[in-house]
Amino acid sequence: MSDHVYKIVEVAGSSPDSVEKAITNAITRIGKDEKHVRWFEVTSTRGHVEHGKISHYQVTLKIGLTLEEE
Amino acid sequence: MSDHVYKIVEVAGSSPDSVEKAITNAITRIGKDEKHVRWFEVTSTRGHVEHGKISHYQVTLKIGLTLEEE
Amino acid sequence: MSDHVYKIVEVAGSSPDSVEKAITNAITRIGKDEKHVRWFEVTSTRGHVEHGKISHYQVTLKIGLTLEEE
Amino acid sequence: MSDHVYKIVEVAGSSPDSVEKAITNAITRIGKDEKHVRWFEVTSTRGHVEHGKISHYQVTLKIGLTLEEE
Amino acid sequence: MSDHVYKIVEVAGSSPDSVEKAITNAITRIGKDEKHVRWFEVTSTRGHVEHGKISHYQVTLKIGLTLEEE
Amino acid sequence: MSDHVYKIVEVAGSSPDSVEKAITNAITRIGKDEKHVRWFEVTSTRGHVEHGKISHYQVTLKIGLTLEEE
Amino acid sequence: MSDHVYKIVEVAGSSPDSVEKAITNAITRIGKDEKHVRWFEVTSTRGHVEHGKISHYQVTLKIGLTLEEE
Amino acid sequence: MSDHVYKIVEVAGSSPDSVEKAITNAITRIGKDEKHVRWFEVTSTRGHVEHGKISHYQVTLKIGLTLEEE
Amino acid sequence: MSDHVYKIVEVAGSSPDSVEKAITNAITRIGKDEKHVRWFEVTSTRGHVEHGKISHYQVTLKIGLTLEEE
Amino acid sequence: MSDHVYKIVEVAGSSPDSVEKAITNAITRIGKDEKHVRWFEVTSTRGHVEHGKISHYQVTLKIGLTLEEE
Amino acid sequence: MSDHVYKIVEVAGSSPDSVEKAITNAITRIGKDEKHVRWFEVTSTRGHVEHGKISHYQVTLKIGLTLEEE
Amino acid sequence: MSDHVYKIVEVAGSSPDSVEKAITNAITRIGKDEKHVRWFEVTSTRGHVEHGKISHYQVTLKIGLTLEEE
Repeated sequence: MSDHVYKIVEVAGSSPDSVEKAITNAITRIGKDEKHVRWFEVTSTRGHVEHGKISHYQVTLKIGLTLEEE
Repeated sequence: MSDHVYKIVEVAGSSPDSVEKAITNAITRIGKDEKHVRWFEVTSTRGHVEHGKISHYQVTLKIGLTLEEE
Repeated sequence: MSDHVYKIVEVAGSSPDSVEKAITNAITRIGKDEKHVRWFEVTSTRGHVEHGKISHYQVTLKIGLTLEEE
Repeated sequence: MSDHVYKIVEVAGSSPDSVEKAITNAITRIGKDEKHVRWFEVTSTRGHVEHGKISHYQVTLKIGLTLEEE
Repeated sequence: MSDHVYKIVEVAGSSPDSVEKAITNAITRIGKDEKHVRWFEVTSTRGHVEHGKISHYQVTLKIGLTLEEE
Repeated sequence: MSDHVYKIVEVAGSSPDSVEKAITNAITRIGKDEKHVRWFEVTSTRGHVEHGKISHYQVTLKIGLTLEEE
Repeated sequence: MSDHVYKIVEVAGSSPDSVEKAITNAITRIGKDEKHVRWFEVTSTRGHVEHGKISHYQVTLKIGLTLEEE
Repeated sequence: MSDHVYKIVEVAGSSPDSVEKAITNAITRIGKDEKHVRWFEVTSTRGHVEHGKISHYQVTLKIGLTLEEE
Repeated sequence: MSDHVYKIVEVAGSSPDSVEKAITNAITRIGKDEKHVRWFEVTSTRGHVEHGKISHYQVTLKIGLTLEEE
Repeated sequence: MSDHVYKIVEVAGSSPDSVEKAITNAITRIGKDEKHVRWFEVTSTRGHVEHGKISHYQVTLKIGLTLEEE
Repeated sequence: MSDHVYKIVEVAGSSPDSVEKAITNAITRIGKDEKHVRWFEVTSTRGHVEHGKISHYQVTLKIGLTLEEE
Repeated sequence: MSDHVYKIVEVAGSSPDSVEKAITNAITRIGKDEKHVRWFEVTSTRGHVEHGKISHYQVTLKIGLTLEEE
């Protein structure tokens, strides 16, 4: 494992339901473009409020991807 | 939207159940005093422990409010 | 001057033109509610983009106010 | 205690004598406007110098207040 | 309460299900070795991804323990 | 709006004239490669000096892009 | 001195009187369990307020200990 | 270029007009004492307010200077 | 040089031997995909340990690339 | 006041007695070399421990000096 | 792997030769007391200078240890 | 040792070979102007890349100097 080079990308996902679903939505969407997603780290947790209620959570992540050998 | 001025206030809510409920409790309470709550950002997530169990989560938020024109 | 107590409030102002006008708009608006504004410090500089152009700058400030003696 | 919502305000107090008196001056002054002050955290310690001597210490605090139920 | 000295330890717990369960697993495990756990603060929220899905959340905490008088 | 996933990229633009023009140059250039630029945040403001004069400002930005559904 | 390995532990001490006594209480208590305390660094200064007065200061420290050779 | 050693000094300049002029005033003044100013980085942007208007911007910079060979 | 726009990407390289080789491995790998790599900045230095020995260093970098004119 | 340029220098003073005396010792010493000291900001508070007792406090300061016109 | 709880300890190692040897000395010494060392992260790199030469490097690490099931 | 006042200066050294040599070059150069260099702390590690290879490492240091009694 020590020879891998990782690329780290930053994305933000959202969900009306929970922090975990906002993370999952971001991971699922990035997985359509990028293979080899390995880990994530939360860098901010925010949300929007409409009429006094939370309309959705928005969670920003750093995501680590293994770069394939060429 | 570009003409608004926002005021940003800091509050901490708590809940025995989850991070999301602690956030919701803070948003609901601040909504009693302030109209026009627009967004929040989590600045810390803490909790208290009694007899080895989590008694409640306490989440600190920055909350953005639109200031009305005068 | 050494006896004053300052209150520090956080606001965000915006302008389509420049960082300085976004700051000025925030200072002017807060001046309607609060007397004795003394200083500010920029804590973030952001902006929104529409159709590839900057629609407005949004600058967040901490603002220091002298609290009057009672 | 787990149901309380706290509001967090930022103030700066000063004193010619010590860091502790600058904190006490800020807490005393804010106590005139706000009931239910619970805790504080120092966010910066500064001071002014005149003719080579410290004229006063200026300490910035975050202060936590319990918001009453309504 | 003002005479206590607290020790602060850092631990990371994990769970396939949620941030809250990862925190609970860390608190439960540390409670086997340490009496008098009082509070925690989240310092990072990460996770691992396998085959495009989140395999587990990993949450790092600072945990405060009362040191007993001797 | 709550279903979008954003990608966040970091770029640095420069201008001999002002901070705002350095930001605009970065936004304009990134707009050639990426559709759906939505917002930016300044992360550093630097500059180069030649013969005692500022030759150009260099501003680093995080830029948020909507990822299209697939 | 260059061969020593230090362990760094985090503790919080408190005192109703001053920041310095809160530090001293923490150093004295940790000295009962650990030999070879060498230095400390303040990481936060907080306090509790009761009936509008400071009931105690609470100072968090990182403390460096020499690990003995084995 | 790889053999240079840089000294980094911190200065604050001010201007009633703009952030850019406050930076320029600092660079010009430091250029009277120091040759070989190469770059700057903004570390804070503040300002003073009098009678509800911005009296001047005050920008703090780190400035890099080439140290000459001896 | 003042007209360039830089893109900044984040990567992590590793090596069993040294911090410098971990950096070199990351720069070499990213150079296969991206032309015009100009500079890097280390954002974290970590490593893995197996059976009491360091198996490899892992260094995370921000890397600056010139974006070509179009 | 808006035309001044400040130089900011970093110093560390120490005292066996208190944080305030360590600050005062630093201000007094720097006043021998530099005229026009205006303000300070504490950037770290540390100390050394010998035989279980605090031998001295060491406080690091940023100090602001007015640069005279030339 | 998702069920493990990690303890994170902070240590500082030193070496007259290099950053890597200072890290290795810290890892080797902590391995005498603790089984199951898994990873480290550098939190500061310092050094001491005597007669104009570096006498030793001192590197502070956070070290992650697997806590065994009980 | 408790009576010393330290001045802290910031410098950046570089080397094509290693982080340690970049540090050594900075310490050696500053030693030509300043007596009584005592310690350093690394604040950033960067480098430049030419034709896909690292041309030099550039390490920024805070350096502590004892100020002599006068």
